[in-house]
Amino acid sequence: MRIALDAMGTDERPVPDVAGGVLAAKEFGDTILLVGDETRIKAELAKLDTTGLKLEIVPAAEEVLMDDKPGVVIKGKPQSSMHVAMNLVAANDADAFVTMGNTGAAHSIATLKTLKRISGVKRPALSSIFSIAGRTFILLDIGANTDSRPEWMAQFAVMGKIYAENALGVKNARVALLSNGEEEGKGNQLIRDAGELIAQLPLNFIGNIEPKAILDGGADVIVSDGFVGNIVVKAFEATTRSLLYLIRDELTRTVFTKAVGALARPALMRVRKQVDPFEIGGAPLLGVNGVVIIGHGRSNAYAVKNAIGQARRAVAGHIIDSIREGLEPTLDLASSAENSAT
Amino acid sequence: MRIALDAMGTDERPVPDVAGGVLAAKEFGDTILLVGDETRIKAELAKLDTTGLKLEIVPAAEEVLMDDKPGVVIKGKPQSSMHVAMNLVAANDADAFVTMGNTGAAHSIATLKTLKRISGVKRPALSSIFSIAGRTFILLDIGANTDSRPEWMAQFAVMGKIYAENALGVKNARVALLSNGEEEGKGNQLIRDAGELIAQLPLNFIGNIEPKAILDGGADVIVSDGFVGNIVVKAFEATTRSLLYLIRDELTRTVFTKAVGALARPALMRVRKQVDPFEIGGAPLLGVNGVVIIGHGRSNAYAVKNAIGQARRAVAGHIIDSIREGLEPTLDLASSAENSAT
Repeated sequence: MRIALDAMGTDERPVPDVAGGVLAAKEFGDTILLVGDETRIKAELAKLDTTGLKLEIVPAAEEVLMDDKPGVVIKGKPQSSMHVAMNLVAANDADAFVTMGNTGAAHSIATLKTLKRISGVKRPALSSIFSIAGRTFILLDIGANTDSRPEWMAQFAVMGKIYAENALGVKNARVALLSNGEEEGKGNQLIRDAGELIAQLPLNFIGNIEPKAILDGGADVIVSDGFVGNIVVKAFEATTRSLLYLIRDELTRTVFTKAVGALARPALMRVRKQVDPFEIGGAPLLGVNGVVIIGHGRSNAYAVKNAIGQARRAVAGHIIDSIREGLEPTLDLASSAENSAT
Repeated sequence: MRIALDAMGTDERPVPDVAGGVLAAKEFGDTILLVGDETRIKAELAKLDTTGLKLEIVPAAEEVLMDDKPGVVIKGKPQSSMHVAMNLVAANDADAFVTMGNTGAAHSIATLKTLKRISGVKRPALSSIFSIAGRTFILLDIGANTDSRPEWMAQFAVMGKIYAENALGVKNARVALLSNGEEEGKGNQLIRDAGELIAQLPLNFIGNIEPKAILDGGADVIVSDGFVGNIVVKAFEATTRSLLYLIRDELTRTVFTKAVGALARPALMRVRKQVDPFEIGGAPLLGVNGVVIIGHGRSNAYAVKNAIGQARRAVAGHIIDSIREGLEPTLDLASSAENSAT
């Protein structure tokens, strides 16, 4: 397998990116294409043991910045590592693309400039994957679209189910809609309309789900409007972070609590590992003609390696072909719903 | 002060309700009107030391159940403890109403049957109050309305500011809009429209806020659409709960971790106390002609007492009169925005 890695993705680019690519080449035996500033990538590689690894450097003169304005991004930054790397996938020179860079840019460059939407896809969706206490689930859309339509969300349901079953190893994925209550009739107008459409699809649709049930493993695929999904993912992350800080503060107040904290550290580290997004590494942008995995800008090498692992599973699971076929039942649905949607 | 307490509110009604009322009468010296099943209330009071406390029983033949259907609730259950207790406030026989019961029922009985909206209020809002690491903030609407309009949200901003300043002791409250990003232009259509209206009001409006900044104390009043607000509050609660469970599990795995867990317990209890909703007890329904404080159905006596404390601060802060005056600048805004809103 050949994975095109945006080497200019993380906040500390290209250090964790290159190191993560090397880790992946070692662990998976795949060819990793390191796309970006050749001089800086070589300098990083020189620090690492790369003996026998399949690593290729693909030069790219520019890079997408985290604070690039949408106006700049929309033109696609054709010389950027992100754009060049995605083109490798579009040209079948690579099987998948992985970046820790600007999510909005990855979304727009993939959708508008390089890979383009899979035929029939109304809107691609960004996703987030969680694995808590051994239960893995995918939440989408988490922000590709801020004002969604019911027929887009019906497609998110199908794409999420395919990803869960083909790449996350879930069987007969339970699909649910993120809502403010589980009873039928709960939700805002958009959720109620989306629920009606999703119920017509050949899915294991279990209805509405609330945050508590999500964390308890109540569904494998959680479909949300991109605005709400984005806020909920951020709420999960922010709450975890705040609570772990509060615990750290309490355990460093006195000599005694510091001693207890030291003893409790392995247990707390195991908890932290269970909720650490770096264990997952990245999650797919679904609906474009190629595997695109996007991770956190703060990623370390381990997270980059895990994101590449995610890309491998997506490729091995034939995600793109499966989505192309799987969307068939949504095509009519989409066009008929489009007229009635607000 | 006279507080009308729905004695048939909690899941374990009337046990924690009556005990909480007694705690409040003792701590605050106020008159607590215990509204509900006279026989059962008397039976609970007989178990407690009520010497010298100002407690009155107001009989009510019915009670609102947690699973009462909206169709039943909408008729107002006129004999229910909730309805009878709110009528005491409407008739000026009590200064405030407190319940741990069905939130939807409290909202509809207050809005449609008893207290009614304050003149000019488009829609009342449910709120949630958090106090984390010494920072207190109020989030509204958390679910009175599932499809909000920008002009309603502008009123939520004003009501939230007044509550924060008059009842929570915040000075020059910073008002923010819950969104998927802090930059201007972020948000869905509703948030962008609401932001434009709120910016025209005499408020210390600081723009959009994300969940991380909320938990870091970045604003005192967070305005949200009721659908999103409800999900975010549930996400905060669910994540906290899940993480504390994971920690408990890790600390009870082996004899060694159990010993460490026992040592760490006081520190972890202090963390828990900081995020425990029972410390706040309840939060107001804002926009109706009377102080209405609603708490969790799972509340214990301590939480009921704290909810009564919240009601006292709202009464002392002249919340209702202040809202009546404070909404003045939103009245024109509301009518002009109404035409352009989708």
